[in-house]
Amino acid sequence: MKQIAGGVTAARGFQAAAAAAEIKYKNRTDMAMIYSEVPCRAAGTFTTNVVKAAPVMWDQDIVYHKPFAQAVICNSGIANACTGARGYDYCRKTAEAAAQALNIPAEAVLVASTGVIGMQLPIDRLCDGVKAMAPLLEGTLEAGCRASRAIMTTDTKNKEVAVQVEIGGKTVTIGGMCKGSGMIHPNMCTMLAFITTDACISREMLQAALSEDVQDTYNMVSVDGDTSTNDTVLLLANGMAENPEIIEKNKDYEAFKGALNYVNTALSRKIAGDGEGATALFEMKIVGAETKAQAVTLAKAVVMSSLVKAAVYGHDANWGRILCAMGYSGAQFDPEKVDLFFESAAGKLQIIENGVAVDYSEEKASRILSEPEVTAIADVKMGDAKATAWGCDLTYDYVKINADYRS
Amino acid sequence: MKQIAGGVTAARGFQAAAAAAEIKYKNRTDMAMIYSEVPCRAAGTFTTNVVKAAPVMWDQDIVYHKPFAQAVICNSGIANACTGARGYDYCRKTAEAAAQALNIPAEAVLVASTGVIGMQLPIDRLCDGVKAMAPLLEGTLEAGCRASRAIMTTDTKNKEVAVQVEIGGKTVTIGGMCKGSGMIHPNMCTMLAFITTDACISREMLQAALSEDVQDTYNMVSVDGDTSTNDTVLLLANGMAENPEIIEKNKDYEAFKGALNYVNTALSRKIAGDGEGATALFEMKIVGAETKAQAVTLAKAVVMSSLVKAAVYGHDANWGRILCAMGYSGAQFDPEKVDLFFESAAGKLQIIENGVAVDYSEEKASRILSEPEVTAIADVKMGDAKATAWGCDLTYDYVKINADYRS
Repeated sequence: MKQIAGGVTAARGFQAAAAAAEIKYKNRTDMAMIYSEVPCRAAGTFTTNVVKAAPVMWDQDIVYHKPFAQAVICNSGIANACTGARGYDYCRKTAEAAAQALNIPAEAVLVASTGVIGMQLPIDRLCDGVKAMAPLLEGTLEAGCRASRAIMTTDTKNKEVAVQVEIGGKTVTIGGMCKGSGMIHPNMCTMLAFITTDACISREMLQAALSEDVQDTYNMVSVDGDTSTNDTVLLLANGMAENPEIIEKNKDYEAFKGALNYVNTALSRKIAGDGEGATALFEMKIVGAETKAQAVTLAKAVVMSSLVKAAVYGHDANWGRILCAMGYSGAQFDPEKVDLFFESAAGKLQIIENGVAVDYSEEKASRILSEPEVTAIADVKMGDAKATAWGCDLTYDYVKINADYRS
Repeated sequence: MKQIAGGVTAARGFQAAAAAAEIKYKNRTDMAMIYSEVPCRAAGTFTTNVVKAAPVMWDQDIVYHKPFAQAVICNSGIANACTGARGYDYCRKTAEAAAQALNIPAEAVLVASTGVIGMQLPIDRLCDGVKAMAPLLEGTLEAGCRASRAIMTTDTKNKEVAVQVEIGGKTVTIGGMCKGSGMIHPNMCTMLAFITTDACISREMLQAALSEDVQDTYNMVSVDGDTSTNDTVLLLANGMAENPEIIEKNKDYEAFKGALNYVNTALSRKIAGDGEGATALFEMKIVGAETKAQAVTLAKAVVMSSLVKAAVYGHDANWGRILCAMGYSGAQFDPEKVDLFFESAAGKLQIIENGVAVDYSEEKASRILSEPEVTAIADVKMGDAKATAWGCDLTYDYVKINADYRS
């Protein structure tokens, strides 16, 4: 497996385009289109929020009930959530505009939105944007990059990754893009991520691979504990790699899932590191847990703690807050057995042993915590299970961004 | 029932004192003592955090297993959490110092600590502080006020309240003080609160009243979602009001519980309004719920949402974030039936009806949200159950306080 340049257009047969439709922002692109030259099998995971945005409901219908998908239309600026029947009708109108422009069925068009909740989309400008993008479609890496920029909201960086893996003697490519910076606390899946692959794989195996992998990737990210109304991960496979079709959980499936995990992990880390206002990616590894579920619970509680996040921002080895968060997570463990380490590009340092502080250097700890990617490792010494969660620091800018966002 | 001046010394027979023991802070008081002239029945509720501070374990032993309590020693600056066997031994040493100074059994001395996790207490200075406070004990309101100031950490205001109620022809007084500003997310109970009463009430009824009432008061407060290792509410009753002993859940019990609820609600609101960095108290009322549990889940999710809290700070009627938080709370409801209102001293305004925005004035909404106490009311139209949760806004200062706290 090797990482390559690009995102959603890296895999054979996928094209992308962007447009400036003035949905809410001015002077920037705010719409993206992804298109496959041939119909794709589609898998998806969606928000578990009771308040589901209209595009989530539209996409669930396609992923669960329609034979294939061939395009994705995404806009930034307005989330099309809490918009009632009119919001759902706008999904249909968007899909119909794309169907006409691309000469494919409307029920093969997935839609996604991100932005302010509660406002109605300017549907005419949206449909104009769809029409404008169709003739701009290109299979180049640049086109994929343009699409990834168009879906940003408070993101400061566009987020793309692609990887190649050999499956059944053929080179299979998986590429993806995502957006997400605030209202990030995936539960079942997260924010918006679009993954394309030329792998030949059955619909069942495609969904299985995605559903399993989001548990270890997007679902392990938290920026602010707020599970969005719009969380969507879509995975499109068009089969153009011509590998033997993957129809069971054999070694080809594992190879595909390994490559998918690489893409999803890289995108998840990008989301966490670009959390609203963040200056650092914060990674929490739990090792020595009794069960995977216990490790997940402990790791997520730590990356969600406002106090831990503020301490990371202050480069302060305030380990008591990490133990405190593990303690209220709901998972059982013996605090008096925990070892804790901090690690980054600046080195690795043990902070506590069996629940109490060792005689460590605060200065060295602070240096480790001053890097842009910081890891804490807690060993609870109960077994072999482990989990990793990703978050970011809590900064003045998170407050600024979110106190001002709507205006 | 009527509110009166004072706190822990308002009820007959209770005295208090404070001392500057240089536990961690300089040039301020950091220890408090509460003393009853006669032995008290004691009730308590404690943190559910797996990581329990040493004083929590000490107090649980007294409240659950010892016949009575007569004094409380509290220090600020160091939490005595994650301090192992030595930390517990320091609780015993503190109690022994108080026992000697006050001529009462050590097992009648409750202890409490708040501050940095993981540091050991300077036990000699702590014991010196205990000795210094004993001769300073006074039953005056001023002495109660001094005690309430000594237990502050990042609190900006001391927190006291007292109330009187007639029970069995006698005037019963309940007064209390508390501290709490960060690491506030009570689960079963919260931060440090000390309530004193001269009511005559059996131990079982005292604990029942407290356990029931914390569910509606401290447990409905969240500043940052972090359940502390030290959360403790202690309720001491010395019987000096000479009301007929309350030994069952009759109307006297209800009168007592009503007065206790008044004290606990007032203290809970004070904690939320003085959350670290807060500029506003944010109150979330859920009405029309099917069950109390559902209403509690919905209300707490909203006050815990970082995005809702940041919007309150920005005086932004970003109602989508409130619906979003209700949606991921775990409680079921129909988003398309929800009505939402904002209310404060500046007026009341309906924002959404049946899940979609009404044509409200953003300017008026912003004016309502600019008051120091802001309420949102969501009617989910499923039944008659309701719940109220208290939080605060999320501000730059929350980040500043917690990025710098240890240093």
